[in-house]
Amino acid sequence: MFDKIVKALLPSDHHFYDLFDESAQNIVEAGNLLKKLFLTKTATERDKIVTQISVLEHQGDSVTHRIFSELNSTFVTPFDREDIHMLTSRLDDIMDHIDGSAGRVSLYKLTKFPESMIRLTDILHLSIDEVQKAVRLLRDFEQGDQFQKVFKTVNEYENEADKIFERAIADLFEKEKNAIQVIKLKEIYQGLETATDMCEDVANVLEGIYIKHS
Amino acid sequence: MFDKIVKALLPSDHHFYDLFDESAQNIVEAGNLLKKLFLTKTATERDKIVTQISVLEHQGDSVTHRIFSELNSTFVTPFDREDIHMLTSRLDDIMDHIDGSAGRVSLYKLTKFPESMIRLTDILHLSIDEVQKAVRLLRDFEQGDQFQKVFKTVNEYENEADKIFERAIADLFEKEKNAIQVIKLKEIYQGLETATDMCEDVANVLEGIYIKHS
Amino acid sequence: MFDKIVKALLPSDHHFYDLFDESAQNIVEAGNLLKKLFLTKTATERDKIVTQISVLEHQGDSVTHRIFSELNSTFVTPFDREDIHMLTSRLDDIMDHIDGSAGRVSLYKLTKFPESMIRLTDILHLSIDEVQKAVRLLRDFEQGDQFQKVFKTVNEYENEADKIFERAIADLFEKEKNAIQVIKLKEIYQGLETATDMCEDVANVLEGIYIKHS
Repeated sequence: MFDKIVKALLPSDHHFYDLFDESAQNIVEAGNLLKKLFLTKTATERDKIVTQISVLEHQGDSVTHRIFSELNSTFVTPFDREDIHMLTSRLDDIMDHIDGSAGRVSLYKLTKFPESMIRLTDILHLSIDEVQKAVRLLRDFEQGDQFQKVFKTVNEYENEADKIFERAIADLFEKEKNAIQVIKLKEIYQGLETATDMCEDVANVLEGIYIKHS
Repeated sequence: MFDKIVKALLPSDHHFYDLFDESAQNIVEAGNLLKKLFLTKTATERDKIVTQISVLEHQGDSVTHRIFSELNSTFVTPFDREDIHMLTSRLDDIMDHIDGSAGRVSLYKLTKFPESMIRLTDILHLSIDEVQKAVRLLRDFEQGDQFQKVFKTVNEYENEADKIFERAIADLFEKEKNAIQVIKLKEIYQGLETATDMCEDVANVLEGIYIKHS
Repeated sequence: MFDKIVKALLPSDHHFYDLFDESAQNIVEAGNLLKKLFLTKTATERDKIVTQISVLEHQGDSVTHRIFSELNSTFVTPFDREDIHMLTSRLDDIMDHIDGSAGRVSLYKLTKFPESMIRLTDILHLSIDEVQKAVRLLRDFEQGDQFQKVFKTVNEYENEADKIFERAIADLFEKEKNAIQVIKLKEIYQGLETATDMCEDVANVLEGIYIKHS
């Protein structure tokens, strides 16, 4: 009992940072696999990648759960509880949208991917790398300049993703005459676009934390 | 004025628990009706059920509103204000998705329901029963074991619902050649699936409350 | 440094109210343009309006960003930080849905708009006016009666919008045989309907603030 109280009272900053890093690393790996998915030639190979992403998603869920447990049983946290909650949820959201998009590729038996879908995945991939950088910078609030650079880059990626997405949907409506195919592809586009939105959300949460501590 | 202050200062735990129970009971009844809806033979009978669910949804809104008013005018709450807010909102979300799914059945003039839609409603129905159990357990934080059992069951139901949903959408895309019919049914599937997600969200909020108080 | 501390400690109520007013004014202007959009005859004129709305959306983003920065660097706020955050986010959501709906009109090359789409935009327009009134009333918590009247009106508009929306979607499914056209119009209807939902959400947040201060 006494041990439990002491543990709860002591700041466990390192533990939180480690868990955030683990979450970000998971997302980076899922992003790598997603990029690979759209370039893979056979359905068998694609299904294998989809399963690998799904495993990472489960690992991500477990990290999320550990952060929430930690949050609920710790008195002293490295920054505001609600910011930790928000950051964790948004990281989890990125992973969910990667996993959801990948799952649909396999479930909807898609075999061909428009060029703009591959480009959108590239942007997402780059944005995830920036998110990982930003999460790592959390350990040291002195590095304000680097933070700002990452925020700016993530925002640029999100704007670029937006444009690719809008153009892609308009093209889809114009060129694809099979409405069911339109529905399928549109859903995957939306999953990818929302994933880049969530990267921007992570950046916004981190910016909020940064402002409070600067 | 003095009365108002005293009332605001005194813990009104019972009041909150009663309102949560009322909200859960409403959802249970809506879940029962939804299950009946998909097994009913005539459009007239279905429209009647849809109206009954809509009445429950309005009652649910009123409970939600009362909890929020109570929350905003009470100083001492049985657990964290933001947890009460979240719990109330998620319960309301379950109801909204039941009502939305039922309403669409009537509005889109659907007459036949795929087997997997009925199965999904069964899972939702079972999950809602667990949610009600969990809400009742809130009154006594000593019952940790029972809590854990309910959380586990709700999670299992959610996973099962996920699988049924994904399979159902893939089947829909393969077998239903009428794209407008695909859009209609897909929307109802999504409403049902999101309702089971919201049951899991309620369980997660309750788990958070439980961890803080254990 | 000392200046910064003093600034942070002093209540900056007026600043917050000014920013809320700026956000509401932006939304009012976007709502006016949206109404105009659906009544405009040529694609060139429509594209011009879409661009004007997009400019307002960017201005809105900048106001949102300024409120969040202010919030994160101010110790004393005119009301609860989470209420300020929620109010700001919901106002931003209204704008995002106006901008999203307008953008789709241009992107999807739509040229004809159903009567119910115009009616939905009218309701949204009226609801936004009430939201602006409610935001202005924030400066003076004594005006409880006027607050209540605005809340009631916004709720009535939201119910009316709901009915128009449901009827419109059912009609769309019945009359429009081109599934891709159904998808396009349905998306715009949803954007407009969600914008009126967000007006109601703003009213709910404001009601919460009002209850706490009455």
